[in-house]
Amino acid sequence: MDTHQISAAFIHGMAFNANINGHSVITDTTTDGGGNDEGPSPKRLMLASLAGCTGIDVVSILNKMKVPFSDFSIDVWASLTDEHPKIYKEVKLTYRIRIVETDKSRMEKAVKLSDEKYCGVSAMFKTFAKVEHEVVYL
Amino acid sequence: MDTHQISAAFIHGMAFNANINGHSVITDTTTDGGGNDEGPSPKRLMLASLAGCTGIDVVSILNKMKVPFSDFSIDVWASLTDEHPKIYKEVKLTYRIRIVETDKSRMEKAVKLSDEKYCGVSAMFKTFAKVEHEVVYL
Repeated sequence: MDTHQISAAFIHGMAFNANINGHSVITDTTTDGGGNDEGPSPKRLMLASLAGCTGIDVVSILNKMKVPFSDFSIDVWASLTDEHPKIYKEVKLTYRIRIVETDKSRMEKAVKLSDEKYCGVSAMFKTFAKVEHEVVYL
Repeated sequence: MDTHQISAAFIHGMAFNANINGHSVITDTTTDGGGNDEGPSPKRLMLASLAGCTGIDVVSILNKMKVPFSDFSIDVWASLTDEHPKIYKEVKLTYRIRIVETDKSRMEKAVKLSDEKYCGVSAMFKTFAKVEHEVVYL
């Protein structure tokens, strides 16, 4: 059984410094929430987890298929429930990439494989939110 | 309806640079996964979201109750499913804090309120994992 561990130390205000396998990530909240905006909000950080996870899959699959690409980015848009505690309800991933015409179907296959088979963060998101995908070619 | 947006740009290898409200967070994978370990793994980053979210709640509540504290940290331990895509199955939060004896019940109330009422990230985790809490007094 795999296990993961992280530790987050309180700094000051509402800021915490998380040690994740030797990498430091500061989370905070805005001044409205009593913080100093010294780092991303914890909830939004989940969207970076989602983008980073599916991004690794897509890059791995494109590399395996020997598909060259450039200018790759992933935008994540998410709506929240009105009731508290507010959770993500609808999530839309927009993959932007520069790729030759004949490789576009491979890109779509990579996104589909990440969504349906490989990305654990996507699988977790899908237990509480509707997750949609779109590919925009540059 | 509230919405959140982030954007993650591919850097190289398996590394992405997420822009979260002007804050930059790099995610990557280890050399085993084809990356260069330039940032935390996306999945583990979700555990930092959880710690940062409940941390903000606990600090806010202790501040409101005028409870002084020090040396506050939150450890997160999580087990993963054996089947793919691997998702978090059991999550344990250990809150470590230095606080006077007479305020310990207030600390436990703060943890309970975060878990049951305030923390959206906890609420999302509870849709796919069993989440447990423990307070350790220093």
